[in-house]
Amino acid sequence: MRITVCLTDNRPDAWIEGLRAALPEAMVENWRPGAPQADHAVVWAPPQEFIDDQPALRGIFNIGAGVDALLKLKLPPEAQVVRLDDAGMSVQMAEYVCHALIRHFREFDIYEADARESRWSFRKPREREDFAVGVMGLGVLGERVAKAVAQFEFPVNGWSRSPKAIGGLRCFAGEAEFDDFLGASRVLVNLLPLTEATRGILNRENLSRLNGGEPGGYLINVGRGAHLVEADLIPLLDSGRLAGATLDVFEVEPLPAEHPFWRHPKITVTPHGSARTVREASIAQIAGKIRAVELGEPIAGVVGRERGY
Amino acid sequence: MRITVCLTDNRPDAWIEGLRAALPEAMVENWRPGAPQADHAVVWAPPQEFIDDQPALRGIFNIGAGVDALLKLKLPPEAQVVRLDDAGMSVQMAEYVCHALIRHFREFDIYEADARESRWSFRKPREREDFAVGVMGLGVLGERVAKAVAQFEFPVNGWSRSPKAIGGLRCFAGEAEFDDFLGASRVLVNLLPLTEATRGILNRENLSRLNGGEPGGYLINVGRGAHLVEADLIPLLDSGRLAGATLDVFEVEPLPAEHPFWRHPKITVTPHGSARTVREASIAQIAGKIRAVELGEPIAGVVGRERGY
Repeated sequence: MRITVCLTDNRPDAWIEGLRAALPEAMVENWRPGAPQADHAVVWAPPQEFIDDQPALRGIFNIGAGVDALLKLKLPPEAQVVRLDDAGMSVQMAEYVCHALIRHFREFDIYEADARESRWSFRKPREREDFAVGVMGLGVLGERVAKAVAQFEFPVNGWSRSPKAIGGLRCFAGEAEFDDFLGASRVLVNLLPLTEATRGILNRENLSRLNGGEPGGYLINVGRGAHLVEADLIPLLDSGRLAGATLDVFEVEPLPAEHPFWRHPKITVTPHGSARTVREASIAQIAGKIRAVELGEPIAGVVGRERGY
Repeated sequence: MRITVCLTDNRPDAWIEGLRAALPEAMVENWRPGAPQADHAVVWAPPQEFIDDQPALRGIFNIGAGVDALLKLKLPPEAQVVRLDDAGMSVQMAEYVCHALIRHFREFDIYEADARESRWSFRKPREREDFAVGVMGLGVLGERVAKAVAQFEFPVNGWSRSPKAIGGLRCFAGEAEFDDFLGASRVLVNLLPLTEATRGILNRENLSRLNGGEPGGYLINVGRGAHLVEADLIPLLDSGRLAGATLDVFEVEPLPAEHPFWRHPKITVTPHGSARTVREASIAQIAGKIRAVELGEPIAGVVGRERGY
């Protein structure tokens, strides 16, 4: 069995070494144009040239949870596209979202500003019943985030394409229940996959529905930059419709230095680090899946190309 | 049955109204010198004069978890002193500690400083296995905090006076195991009651033991200001022995404007708000306990005066 590795923005050496150790029966090599035809590929944002050069791939394993960049390519129709599920990412996502949520709810950013002025201040505590959290996307990451948030006794709503039942969450599904989900949520956490159906879903109309249509909604975007209509956000913040936003992903990354998000007082920007790929856990997961595929066993994380995730 | 209310720093009206509604059989009044003798008192930091004026109290109910201020008074020897347990405080404490912990571990403070410079930065993620969290004090609040932290997959140690076994925690007990507990912990969370045995426990010697005696320890103090030897902290930070501290409590509160903690770059100061008393939950709890005491039933949260909590 031959495995080829094609990573953008990641040094391949440690991945190749780890895959060789995990799959000693395989030939694992970094891809170069004209390399021998491989059975499986381990990829991050490969160029179309790579795909065209490897038409007989049976498995294409993405080293991230989101496959939107990969699905933009023209892929061999028979190849199974597989995303990471969890592999150490869900705990990071739960951390990121809980930190942003608690920071906003408890107003720790304002207390820190007071502290810079040596000011011992008192702010009336807010009621957590008023801060229902809505999680969009209830895959492995979304479910973990929702459960972490529920532990802090916030009301939690979940929204997914197909109906789900998850303990402790009020679950909404599909377009028909989307507006009700938004209205019932004050803090919106986006963990959707980026597909044609979800592109631009964080727009003025939808964001205005948060919190029963009242001011005070808050956005945490850890999905993809293209979920958000960036031009809609600042007017919603400046009019007070939204209270703030924590954003980890952007239409253009790195976020250009002149972008107004950097310095807007109600926006917290982080550089797409909410949940990084953990190499060892990812190698173990991908090696296990490759072995399962070779044995004809079912695996998790197979992407539905039509669906887009 | 007569109940008297004596609160410092809190308006008594809503408490009196709530207690009257919860205990319609009782006479509930605000204390004034020379008031009729009451059976039970609901107090926060009452003056000695109050205690001297009410020598026949059978129950003294503190509207907080820490009774150190109350036990400084000369109390009627027969009166049962009762602290709040939880009553909405533990979730706040879990929030506060998780926010401070995640912020430090994920270096979100540094990312925010980078963002103020419009800088898209990358910092090598740290390993959570290297960030064992040690929780001192395993009462209602400590246990809740430890479990909230464990959910984010940090190794968690707990230390208490008497041995405890709590799932998911490595428990240490008593003086004999204190140094081992400190050495095994990198982030120290103080939730101890303030007693003669714990005053000054956060001192140079003990804080230097964190993280196996290596630099990089971090302190989160949500107990009492007098647990920390304040003069020891800044040299530990400036020498790099400790990486930082988040402090909610201080020897003198409000923290004086000229205190160096305010502006030290490695110290985050909050104004004693990690867990505020939630009035409705506290009234319900105290009313329930008063009724139980009247029926001769056992109640939780009875303070051992010798023990000091």
